[in-house]
Amino acid sequence: MTTNTTDATLETFLDENHDRRIESYKDLLRIPSISALPQHADDCRATAEWIATDLRASGIEHVSVEPTGGHPVVYGDWLHADGAPTVIVYCHYDVQPVDPLELWTSPPFEPVVVGDRMLARGASDDKGQLHIHLRALEALFATRGRLPVNLKFIFEGDEESSAEHLDKWVNENRDRLTADFVVISDTGFFDGNLPSITVGLRGIMYAQIDVVGSRLDLHSGVYGGAVDNPANVLARIITSLKGPDGRILIPGFYDGVVSLTERERELLTELPFDEDDYRRRIDATALTGEAGFTTLERRGARPTLDVNGIWGGFTGEGSKTIIPAHAHAKVSCRLVPNQDPEVIFASFKAFVEDIAPPTVRLTVTSLGTGRPSLTPVDHPATQAAARALEATFGRAPLYIREGGSIPVCATFEETLGLPVVLLGFDPPDQQAHAPNEWMDLNNYERGIRTVVRMWDEVADLDPSSLGQTPH
Amino acid sequence: MTTNTTDATLETFLDENHDRRIESYKDLLRIPSISALPQHADDCRATAEWIATDLRASGIEHVSVEPTGGHPVVYGDWLHADGAPTVIVYCHYDVQPVDPLELWTSPPFEPVVVGDRMLARGASDDKGQLHIHLRALEALFATRGRLPVNLKFIFEGDEESSAEHLDKWVNENRDRLTADFVVISDTGFFDGNLPSITVGLRGIMYAQIDVVGSRLDLHSGVYGGAVDNPANVLARIITSLKGPDGRILIPGFYDGVVSLTERERELLTELPFDEDDYRRRIDATALTGEAGFTTLERRGARPTLDVNGIWGGFTGEGSKTIIPAHAHAKVSCRLVPNQDPEVIFASFKAFVEDIAPPTVRLTVTSLGTGRPSLTPVDHPATQAAARALEATFGRAPLYIREGGSIPVCATFEETLGLPVVLLGFDPPDQQAHAPNEWMDLNNYERGIRTVVRMWDEVADLDPSSLGQTPH
Repeated sequence: MTTNTTDATLETFLDENHDRRIESYKDLLRIPSISALPQHADDCRATAEWIATDLRASGIEHVSVEPTGGHPVVYGDWLHADGAPTVIVYCHYDVQPVDPLELWTSPPFEPVVVGDRMLARGASDDKGQLHIHLRALEALFATRGRLPVNLKFIFEGDEESSAEHLDKWVNENRDRLTADFVVISDTGFFDGNLPSITVGLRGIMYAQIDVVGSRLDLHSGVYGGAVDNPANVLARIITSLKGPDGRILIPGFYDGVVSLTERERELLTELPFDEDDYRRRIDATALTGEAGFTTLERRGARPTLDVNGIWGGFTGEGSKTIIPAHAHAKVSCRLVPNQDPEVIFASFKAFVEDIAPPTVRLTVTSLGTGRPSLTPVDHPATQAAARALEATFGRAPLYIREGGSIPVCATFEETLGLPVVLLGFDPPDQQAHAPNEWMDLNNYERGIRTVVRMWDEVADLDPSSLGQTPH
Repeated sequence: MTTNTTDATLETFLDENHDRRIESYKDLLRIPSISALPQHADDCRATAEWIATDLRASGIEHVSVEPTGGHPVVYGDWLHADGAPTVIVYCHYDVQPVDPLELWTSPPFEPVVVGDRMLARGASDDKGQLHIHLRALEALFATRGRLPVNLKFIFEGDEESSAEHLDKWVNENRDRLTADFVVISDTGFFDGNLPSITVGLRGIMYAQIDVVGSRLDLHSGVYGGAVDNPANVLARIITSLKGPDGRILIPGFYDGVVSLTERERELLTELPFDEDDYRRRIDATALTGEAGFTTLERRGARPTLDVNGIWGGFTGEGSKTIIPAHAHAKVSCRLVPNQDPEVIFASFKAFVEDIAPPTVRLTVTSLGTGRPSLTPVDHPATQAAARALEATFGRAPLYIREGGSIPVCATFEETLGLPVVLLGFDPPDQQAHAPNEWMDLNNYERGIRTVVRMWDEVADLDPSSLGQTPH
């Protein structure tokens, strides 16, 4: 156990402010900050202003809501811990769309506490984690009048829609963003809700395929047999992307992939993981994936290809005898070190164009990319996070590779040359991109204590030991 | 030329009533009788009542709007032409759905005349043809006080959604439906708008495939690689249904297919058909289909398989990183003599179930079937129709095989044992199942004269020469 336990005054403050804290959490969740939908631009801005007001109230300085090409970034800092390390804290305030709305048990932007859970869109991903940081700050300032370390906050609003705006903003603000390392809170605990530090993240390549056959829908009796069908063509294209063994068939796709070492494969087998329980929880009939790999390897350390959406023709009740004029699919790949998402998109596009028949018109468009990343387990900041988690949760964290993508992770590594520690508190089955997203309120409360302990731990580190991340 | 030309009195009547006729045509088109959508049930009934009122006003007897399990049938007859043949006349008053609505240049149920065209949903398929029959009746009664033949009218409201209700009604009303033959007006002219009689129709098998992977949409980062993706699975299933050569791979699919004779193939090559013009009119980049057959063979005499609609996952603007919980497709086959649609559905279902992986839940549901049919070219009623067309349009009709399906054709043949003549007036590119459906008003006007001539021609036939159709 670390000696830097949270002090009694701070615990008393947190106890006394519990109800007010939950109301504030709900207030933040009520604003429908869906970044992917243009009609929610004002909600994204309102969320940014809400956060800025909260930061200022706690004692953070130089708080500003700053324009990007997309939704605004909230910046703020406090830099009076002389000699202590400087840390950039990153969370995102935008959320995923909410459809299918009919599957929510309560409206996604009317947060409710059910048992130990906060239920709302963004409850975990990522407003919940952002709110943990806000409340840790508030408690520190309220009880000590200062912070143990220097902090610079970046709360963005485009994480769920596009990486380009923050990339540009970080690049343009490099001079302001000097620091020793970055903490990103946008990850979660391992299966079974064991405290964990994510040390590997997959990247992403997200594209749309549009196939056009004719000017209008055609009568399937009159034209059936004489023309190609865009929906059948699209099915053929999708099928050609991945073999029956789960291997992706895009030429060169696996060229950059760093294989797991034998030691890494061993560590993965040592994680407590009940495959059957995992399968039952999502109500799948069976797990499956790339031949030659375990489920944990497949979801963390191997690249994937999935259809995220498909549509074309008549999709209503009953029957309509048409050959659709056009058909569409959104297809994305999760990527692993060292795959380059831009190269993968170019290969994907070239392959799809190559296999598409001359009987249709085809367009392949990028809807965004994000680089994969790896964080060193033995970095002093990673170890400080591990001590803070162990002190709060009573057990040492697991080190895991996660399947999701946090493109900004690679941006901090590459643009600022800083190591990134992924300190996150989401429960593993939080339904982040599905209906009924939730946060475990025990994780939320302990998360606040963990962040306080983390800053106390970091205060003891020698800034010169933190160095820069290797490329 | 036949001697039974339309008489001068009747022509005068038609000339004088032109404007009133077009208004009545528009009135009929204004009622949105979409049979496939339950919310339009009242509109279907209103359309049936409109037709019944019109039939009574002309002089048809025993007019009634009769319940079926679906939308009502309008029946009516006039049986005072002693010694002359008795003919059943069939059209349908229901129409296709109208989506995508945004592609209509004017609202689908606000008919407008643009140049020589009536533009509205149902303008041709099949309210336009139904209206031709109503106006021919009106003109005959108004000018002669009687009809030259005995007629029994069946106007149904389920043709675009389900064959079962009319099948049942015809079967239950067999005793009332004695006749010498049937005239169905629900077909069209050949490419280039040449008068034509359809002597072959394809059947249909229409099914829906539902694939379910998990209880909810899954985060594609967290679960990607570990589970199968219902949309990818659906694409694989669809791809497995048809080979790269256009051959359908369902076992036994071609077992019943009657091959074209050499003579039939020759006749098809003699039809005036400009492939490039046909292709350009629908704005396709190329025609294609089953290897070893011409375009006219493929669309008329060969069975097909097409996706009519496909959907699953996120289909909005932007990106959402999910693995869809479920994915769906509507798939139909056009069938030719002597394929049995029920047998084909059973084979389709068994094959899809066989190739689906155990990683998903699968359902295959029939959305309807219709039998293919063939009509003898040399039947006296077919030849009477040919003479009526030639007299009105100035050239002998072509005999064609059409790709569309009119399931009721097989019902009349099989349940009532009657030959069927397909006398239709749609222009070939009428966009029957697409936005901006239209009718050529020259065909419409000449159609009325053709029907009058047809009844005069049939009046001269000896009922004993008309016989029953072979099975």
